[in-house]
Amino acid sequence: MKRCALLVVGDELLDGRVTDTNSDFISSRLLPLGWRVVLRAAVGDEMGIISETVSLALQVSDLIVVTGGLGPTQDDLTREAVASALGRELERDPVIEENLRSFFSSMGREMSPSNARQADRVRGADWLQARLGTAPGQWIEESGRVIVLLPGVPREMQDMLEKEVIPRLKGRYPGGETAAAVLLVAARPESEVGERVYEALGDIEGLKVSFRALTGQVEVRLAGDEPDLVEEGRRRVSEALGEWVVAEGEESLEGNLGDELRKRGLTLAVAESCTGGMIGERITRVPGSSDYFRGGVVAYSYRAKETLLGVDAALLREKGAVNEEVAEAMARGVRERLGSDLGLSVTGVAGPGTGGEKEPVGTVVLGVADGEGARALKYRLPGNREMVRAFAANIALALAYFKVKGVKVEDLR
Amino acid sequence: MKRCALLVVGDELLDGRVTDTNSDFISSRLLPLGWRVVLRAAVGDEMGIISETVSLALQVSDLIVVTGGLGPTQDDLTREAVASALGRELERDPVIEENLRSFFSSMGREMSPSNARQADRVRGADWLQARLGTAPGQWIEESGRVIVLLPGVPREMQDMLEKEVIPRLKGRYPGGETAAAVLLVAARPESEVGERVYEALGDIEGLKVSFRALTGQVEVRLAGDEPDLVEEGRRRVSEALGEWVVAEGEESLEGNLGDELRKRGLTLAVAESCTGGMIGERITRVPGSSDYFRGGVVAYSYRAKETLLGVDAALLREKGAVNEEVAEAMARGVRERLGSDLGLSVTGVAGPGTGGEKEPVGTVVLGVADGEGARALKYRLPGNREMVRAFAANIALALAYFKVKGVKVEDLR
Repeated sequence: MKRCALLVVGDELLDGRVTDTNSDFISSRLLPLGWRVVLRAAVGDEMGIISETVSLALQVSDLIVVTGGLGPTQDDLTREAVASALGRELERDPVIEENLRSFFSSMGREMSPSNARQADRVRGADWLQARLGTAPGQWIEESGRVIVLLPGVPREMQDMLEKEVIPRLKGRYPGGETAAAVLLVAARPESEVGERVYEALGDIEGLKVSFRALTGQVEVRLAGDEPDLVEEGRRRVSEALGEWVVAEGEESLEGNLGDELRKRGLTLAVAESCTGGMIGERITRVPGSSDYFRGGVVAYSYRAKETLLGVDAALLREKGAVNEEVAEAMARGVRERLGSDLGLSVTGVAGPGTGGEKEPVGTVVLGVADGEGARALKYRLPGNREMVRAFAANIALALAYFKVKGVKVEDLR
Repeated sequence: MKRCALLVVGDELLDGRVTDTNSDFISSRLLPLGWRVVLRAAVGDEMGIISETVSLALQVSDLIVVTGGLGPTQDDLTREAVASALGRELERDPVIEENLRSFFSSMGREMSPSNARQADRVRGADWLQARLGTAPGQWIEESGRVIVLLPGVPREMQDMLEKEVIPRLKGRYPGGETAAAVLLVAARPESEVGERVYEALGDIEGLKVSFRALTGQVEVRLAGDEPDLVEEGRRRVSEALGEWVVAEGEESLEGNLGDELRKRGLTLAVAESCTGGMIGERITRVPGSSDYFRGGVVAYSYRAKETLLGVDAALLREKGAVNEEVAEAMARGVRERLGSDLGLSVTGVAGPGTGGEKEPVGTVVLGVADGEGARALKYRLPGNREMVRAFAANIALALAYFKVKGVKVEDLR
């Protein structure tokens, strides 16, 4: 198997301020192409160490992916350090410098001199185009090995990896693909998913199974060298978990919810209390979501619940905001006000305090309404404020998805 | 500042199956003792690489903490690799071997021969007692540097670090506490922040400055051995960047916005189009935000803008949804409907397509309204859908913050 090393650069990755997510992402993309990661390293913004670590990586791997340290400030040292490790010069590329200048002027700004450093290229390197940011990447060949320099900002890095690096790697190192399947399971606890997956896979050998617990969702990953075997495993797991599988591969729950709504010509509106906008944010991550998403109301106060959703003021005073009747009224109200086919609502106590509500922290009530009426489901969710909110958003989206698909569910976990 | 390197050993840490949590834990414990992490590395169960990485770590740091690879199986190679990097022998310790044997017999099991490997010690090392597992750790001194070997299982590692390693480190390297300051700058580009910071710091030496670009925000970090120097740096940077500094230390922009609102007894409501709920989600991350946040409207459709915000239907038909007049009407509308003192609005084209709007992708208009009227600011933002949205949410929060504090701003970047 081909060997690769991942190097992330930046002080913020060393002192715990920022967790490195780039290495996991790059691993997940390189693994199916037959690359084995043999070394991961994170180093600070320091010439000597970056350079020494690149030298070590060159000794033990065929491909080195370096992320970070390509920005315009003085602590962005990756270009210099890699050039020094390879004993090459840096050259300023006038074309890239001009591109940077035009970019800034298109934004109505002048380019500062330090930004020009982003046009410095290790001698002999190819540029990797930056579609999302200003810092281009670099592709460097050194005695049969490849060193790739990518920006550290995850989105910019991911885009450049997918569009610039992977196609080149496939050309440069053909073959060696391994197969993988990913299934996203909603509203079931990880332990149950684990048991059902292992039971479903039975005697299949040669599959690597892994699980990742997300709040209210579990990601199941099957990987192996034989595509047929992976496909057989995927089929079995998909069958065993049935409707609880809400996305596969690159799909997302919110994307699939959108597809189902569009397919049926239905529209959706959302009334959120404790999630504060998270569900709307998730739904509108999907390009084209305006086709089926009418909008939402963040009804964080009693007044917003009354004014914007028509929830009965007496009901709120008597029972508080966290109960089935209010959730149903919110779902009905947002559906009517926005003229959508479906209304989805969330009200709950995310904590740390109860804010005067009668229910304990972690109580969340979801409501869903259509032309025939509304119903509500009540939960007690574990964890802190952030976890309760994320969990509530995930199960609310799952509830909407099951509702649209006509799946009867009484028990979402 | 004393320099340390963290090395984690194990194949499972490289292919994404298991996320390394040990390094963050160790960092968080060493930082207050004045240790700066300069290198983190994860390597597989392979003699050569473990040994090479230990050699690199010895070159760049005073302390190396290695976790993992101390178990009994054949792929547990840390002892051998470290001995090889130091050019020392392994010696089996008969006392530890006997302890292991008693441990197994107390569990009613016989010790397998491979378990005896856990009694192998790098010549000259001190044992570190294992209270929670079978694998003892090792403390090795090498030319004034210290190498610590700990088990990989997080609980065992944490216990050994707290009870065995930290007390020894405090004795071996007394003093040396360090200071750091973090400033969050909103609405200024990273290059400008960088230049102003370096200019402000002028001739101060002994401060390590680093920057992290977030969409629409830049984090500036100053660190050094002398608290007075760090404080002087913080003061200068804070003065130079003035009102653009929206948070310091552990604060967040949304938290500070909340504090300012509460301090002045003001309330806020938000009307979001392209951000789809992100701003509400950010504001409601803050516990207690219900004190000042009245709620919001996700007006993703023309109908929602008309029905829930009272935006003029003729205006939307004539000019589309992305322009100053609509942003102002949204801000006024949400303020009136929710009875808040301030109304904040965002409308824009996040892309990928323009969805029939007249403005290009990346156009975002922010609006803010109070009792005296409304005003709007128009931007062209770079990047993809996700970045435009994140950027828009960040500058909208900054705009609200500046508005509440009475800072006059014409030009948020």
